Amino acid sequence: MALYKADCRASLSLVSRTMTETRVRYAETDQMGVAYHANYLVWCEMGRTDFIREHFKSYADVERDGVRLAVADAQVRYLAPARYDEIIRIETRLADVRSRAVAFEYTITRPADDVRLATARTVLVSVDGAQRPVAMPAELRGRLAAASE
Amino acid sequence: MALYKADCRASLSLVSRTMTETRVRYAETDQMGVAYHANYLVWCEMGRTDFIREHFKSYADVERDGVRLAVADAQVRYLAPARYDEIIRIETRLADVRSRAVAFEYTITRPADDVRLATARTVLVSVDGAQRPVAMPAELRGRLAAASE
Amino acid sequence: MALYKADCRASLSLVSRTMTETRVRYAETDQMGVAYHANYLVWCEMGRTDFIREHFKSYADVERDGVRLAVADAQVRYLAPARYDEIIRIETRLADVRSRAVAFEYTITRPADDVRLATARTVLVSVDGAQRPVAMPAELRGRLAAASE
Amino acid sequence: MALYKADCRASLSLVSRTMTETRVRYAETDQMGVAYHANYLVWCEMGRTDFIREHFKSYADVERDGVRLAVADAQVRYLAPARYDEIIRIETRLADVRSRAVAFEYTITRPADDVRLATARTVLVSVDGAQRPVAMPAELRGRLAAASE
Repeated sequence: MALYKADCRASLSLVSRTMTETRVRYAETDQMGVAYHANYLVWCEMGRTDFIREHFKSYADVERDGVRLAVADAQVRYLAPARYDEIIRIETRLADVRSRAVAFEYTITRPADDVRLATARTVLVSVDGAQRPVAMPAELRGRLAAASE
Repeated sequence: MALYKADCRASLSLVSRTMTETRVRYAETDQMGVAYHANYLVWCEMGRTDFIREHFKSYADVERDGVRLAVADAQVRYLAPARYDEIIRIETRLADVRSRAVAFEYTITRPADDVRLATARTVLVSVDGAQRPVAMPAELRGRLAAASE
Repeated sequence: MALYKADCRASLSLVSRTMTETRVRYAETDQMGVAYHANYLVWCEMGRTDFIREHFKSYADVERDGVRLAVADAQVRYLAPARYDEIIRIETRLADVRSRAVAFEYTITRPADDVRLATARTVLVSVDGAQRPVAMPAELRGRLAAASE
Repeated sequence: MALYKADCRASLSLVSRTMTETRVRYAETDQMGVAYHANYLVWCEMGRTDFIREHFKSYADVERDGVRLAVADAQVRYLAPARYDEIIRIETRLADVRSRAVAFEYTITRPADDVRLATARTVLVSVDGAQRPVAMPAELRGRLAAASE
């Protein structure tokens, strides 16, 4: 999947973004006293859900239409720990849209002191109910493409 | 749901049991330094999965046949903390079988020092794909009933 | 632990309550297409966190003072499934306060159609850093007691 | 962190590996009917735990010695879905050891049909109790280095 092109990055400054805030749950901590690293992918998913709802419609409805966006690649760079009860902010932006795939980028920060906690990127591919890759519905692709311009 | 009858308990000594062992994951700890309490329900589900497989067939196949067992009631009594990397044992037994519901009981121990960590009970109801209660398939009910005699 | 007294219930109508809302995450669903049952305990913990913050201070600060509230008993009755992307509301109230233990009760609803999804009860005991039961600090106990009157 | 060198890869064929097997839990599925993507990081952590235990000692003991390995970077490439009740195998190998960081690589497969489900890489940094980077203890580093030769 050739989605990691430098040229996608060039347009990032024009991309519309959505902001999602959540409070770190006790369940999300581990015995190191900080949020467990896998939860950052859950937070990215929350950001992505909000992005898709804001720019198109609820992803629940996208799935009811028969299309699912399955995560094909995920990367997280952890910069500072998030702790229990802190409010964190997930900024989500669309980095690339192709016929069968879409890449989102995320920045997770702690608004209280404006510290950047993590950056992440996920690539999702459009699949049918049997998990086979299919072209993204035109309307979904169009809305996402519009959101990245 | 009148499944909590004292008389179900009377037959427990005759009930066949299954044993499941697992190692506490780092992901399962919280900042108190012990396993987070909600995970005990996940461990019970692992025990239940093993019980159903041993006495009938994979619960994955039960679902493919169109029946799902949805948790209707869950109780956990926490007796001692489980910690990261410890091996824990889930003992699962069937406590009651009705036409649309089945109750499992669990004892979670740490074999290393034979400490009892928790006891639990879950009631599951048989539902169809739309989450409506349905009678349990005769074969499933029969196998479970046989396992409790 | 004799916290399950009928007489605690009598005062419930006078108890102050807190409301917490959250949106069901994709991560919280399972292949039955509904929220996985163990997550309800996580939602209760969110409600409890908000209750303690509103009536006293952040539970994070309570822990920094050296006291932890460990879950000793949990019960959930599941009434209707919660689904992805639905907003759910957790109503938390304090049911009983003792010197070393406190019981919370929860009602989880879906405000969109006012359906009750679950009721739950958790008993927490006050423990020190070594997980040994200790008396609850007077201020914490006093604030909680005040919240239940 | 310059750990992503092509030359680390050259020695991989000589690296000792550990194998970890686990069964996909119902709790780990999502409404797409497959294992939720964030769980792959949990499975990698299980593989890493086994690797460290086999080549040195329990990571629980490493933490008791005052050192923690915090995840600084994680990448997962998802190749095929894992499903409920399937046994999956995590192959863990050490890709690089530095004074303050260590990189692990993982291949997750389904032994039943030998399908490769995912590949992953995590970089961990050695931190003290306050999450500050510190040099890895000589013995830990030595054992890990020995395991990669």
